[in-house]
Amino acid sequence: MFQTVRGMRDLEPEEMRKRQFFWDKVRKVYESYGFARLETPAVESFDLLSAKGGGGQEIKKEIYYFKDQGDRELGLRFDMTVPTARYVASDASLPKPFKRYCYGQVWRYDRPQAGRYREFTQCDIDIFGIATPAADFEIFAATVDAFLALGFKKFFIRVNNKKLLAGLMDAAGIKDDKKLDAWRAIDKQDKIGWGGVEEELKKRKVPNGKKVIALIKGNKITKEITASEAGAKGKEEMDAFLALCKAAKMEKYVKVDLSLVRGLEYYTGITYEVMAGGKWSCGGGGRYDDLIKLVGGQDTPAVGISYGVDRVIQLMGEAGLFPELGGTKCFVAAVNDSVRLKAAEIAAGLRKEGVSAETDLAGRALRKQFDYCNSRGIPYCVIAGPKELKDKQVVLRDMGTGKEEKVNLASLAGKLK
Amino acid sequence: MFQTVRGMRDLEPEEMRKRQFFWDKVRKVYESYGFARLETPAVESFDLLSAKGGGGQEIKKEIYYFKDQGDRELGLRFDMTVPTARYVASDASLPKPFKRYCYGQVWRYDRPQAGRYREFTQCDIDIFGIATPAADFEIFAATVDAFLALGFKKFFIRVNNKKLLAGLMDAAGIKDDKKLDAWRAIDKQDKIGWGGVEEELKKRKVPNGKKVIALIKGNKITKEITASEAGAKGKEEMDAFLALCKAAKMEKYVKVDLSLVRGLEYYTGITYEVMAGGKWSCGGGGRYDDLIKLVGGQDTPAVGISYGVDRVIQLMGEAGLFPELGGTKCFVAAVNDSVRLKAAEIAAGLRKEGVSAETDLAGRALRKQFDYCNSRGIPYCVIAGPKELKDKQVVLRDMGTGKEEKVNLASLAGKLK
Repeated sequence: MFQTVRGMRDLEPEEMRKRQFFWDKVRKVYESYGFARLETPAVESFDLLSAKGGGGQEIKKEIYYFKDQGDRELGLRFDMTVPTARYVASDASLPKPFKRYCYGQVWRYDRPQAGRYREFTQCDIDIFGIATPAADFEIFAATVDAFLALGFKKFFIRVNNKKLLAGLMDAAGIKDDKKLDAWRAIDKQDKIGWGGVEEELKKRKVPNGKKVIALIKGNKITKEITASEAGAKGKEEMDAFLALCKAAKMEKYVKVDLSLVRGLEYYTGITYEVMAGGKWSCGGGGRYDDLIKLVGGQDTPAVGISYGVDRVIQLMGEAGLFPELGGTKCFVAAVNDSVRLKAAEIAAGLRKEGVSAETDLAGRALRKQFDYCNSRGIPYCVIAGPKELKDKQVVLRDMGTGKEEKVNLASLAGKLK
Repeated sequence: MFQTVRGMRDLEPEEMRKRQFFWDKVRKVYESYGFARLETPAVESFDLLSAKGGGGQEIKKEIYYFKDQGDRELGLRFDMTVPTARYVASDASLPKPFKRYCYGQVWRYDRPQAGRYREFTQCDIDIFGIATPAADFEIFAATVDAFLALGFKKFFIRVNNKKLLAGLMDAAGIKDDKKLDAWRAIDKQDKIGWGGVEEELKKRKVPNGKKVIALIKGNKITKEITASEAGAKGKEEMDAFLALCKAAKMEKYVKVDLSLVRGLEYYTGITYEVMAGGKWSCGGGGRYDDLIKLVGGQDTPAVGISYGVDRVIQLMGEAGLFPELGGTKCFVAAVNDSVRLKAAEIAAGLRKEGVSAETDLAGRALRKQFDYCNSRGIPYCVIAGPKELKDKQVVLRDMGTGKEEKVNLASLAGKLK
């Protein structure tokens, strides 16, 4: 017996129906904003995949890395931002803004855990070529509209700004050469707490750890923070962003949070973290104005949000946001062999009217046909019998209640819709 | 500058819109028949991937094969039948028929050619657990309905039956131990012609090559062919299948063709080849009753059709089957900075009404906003100016003709729909 590869799983029909529901909603919102879908290959060159981390070999341990028979160093994509950056970088003539969304699998060689797989689904939106708070806002607004369309009541997006954080470090007297160390220490706060961050700052020889932490925990954009050029610029961007949120009556979905760091060192401006179901992070993003250049393109600002679809689907389930997502609507059962062709014809007619319908393919007796309906959770059974068919009628059985009624063939589709 | 990996490509927005159109149509048809979507991982164990060819190592050359850091032998899936067979084999309690469809990428280490890539998209439907001609017919009928839904006028499905072909070989006096050789030789007919097949049969020491070829080219299910048990069973299956086609008035979409072999040696009954655009093969399939057992499951009959989506999309393009698949419907331009927020508000209102709308994110002058519309092919521009807004009006510009008219804000969405 063969099994799925460790850390991977099959997505069964019930799960796929949820994903289809999710994707129909989200796609519609993104397209309403003029985002267009781009799909990049699963396999990319290792050179590209390691470019974001500065050409580091250590990423080999975190991804599916391999060589093909032509001895090319390759890997499965671990996100969709880097492949998209490659695409944008390779075509300087692309009209800007280039607004793209995408949806697809990514692969990481993480330690598998409950609810965490080595193959998972991401959904991204990004705007390339525009450096304004209006673009930062559009990414935020499209995400808010997507989560509203999905039915989430409790959600918000935490935002911070990398420049504001630089200003905060300026205020604490941390020089440029120590800012990255400070950034990395603060980023661990979720896991090690503020006490741990203070330790970590000391270990990394970042001065004035207490001051940094106090400014962050104060969560106020004080005059101290905006005293430096970076801080002032960060406040200007944040103010413009918040003004757009307010004008669009979306301020209730945004929460400024100076403690938000979001790991990725390549962010240059706003950063986001999407919190759904009240408190659960399911993704995030930010502005990354240097990435396109890093992968060989022209200087091209970029901003985007990416979230984990598996996580969002799980939160939607917990919040009861999925309607009945049944499969087949009805089964057309044949009472005996003399009416099997007629049953097939009735089913074909129902399909043409937009009603999903199955028939028996195995020559089974009526009882077995009912059993199949029940095992599949098909809610209605149309019973085709020789006697009723003479009057151009069938029996419609509600498989839940067992209630049966005679229905004219001409009105069957309408009744089932 | 980074590039896509050799043999792979990005699917750009225009291409993705075609795929979405394709998929929306096909999915609806498959679901109307009660097929449900299953998605399996991209990565499978090499043991599984090599099971179909009888555990052959030679398949390593044809696929993306690699080891992960846990030294597991893995590979990217080269089709979706084998992973699905794994799924079916692993769960004997799955209600039968299990009717599944799928859509996704597969990878093969072929030599890249024009229109042929190492990553491509397949669309499959299969029925597991039913050995009847009714199941053979349902696979055929769902495929016909899918191609009709896509708008194809000229298409048909070639069918043959492996048992009929066995009967044909019996009639030519070919013993069982030479049937596989004969099968492989006949399969090359497309490439080497009948003369070549005759040579090949000789080379493989298959007797009576001329007789085999004459029977195949005759394309009649003669008494000679049905004299053996296999041949008689093949005719019985074919007759039952054709009767169902006729009862459903679908006989015009089927063409019995004794020369159809379809490479794959694991077929056990009916075989199909989908011919669209008049003469182009874009996929096929057949009955493969032994595969589930081969991958460790219980004896489970199976039948299905798989086709190459890239090929179908190309044929649809050539046949002019795509409607206008534009992206954004309108752009809301701001005449000057004083009305930018108002323009954003109008765009947000349009989106809520189901009209896709973009606004300027870059603080561009009106002329540049028009340029962007044109570069993106956005057909309408809503021009928000301070004077018109005072009267709750905007100017609606048809970007194709340049014609402009004043429209009340209240009726704008209705007009654009």
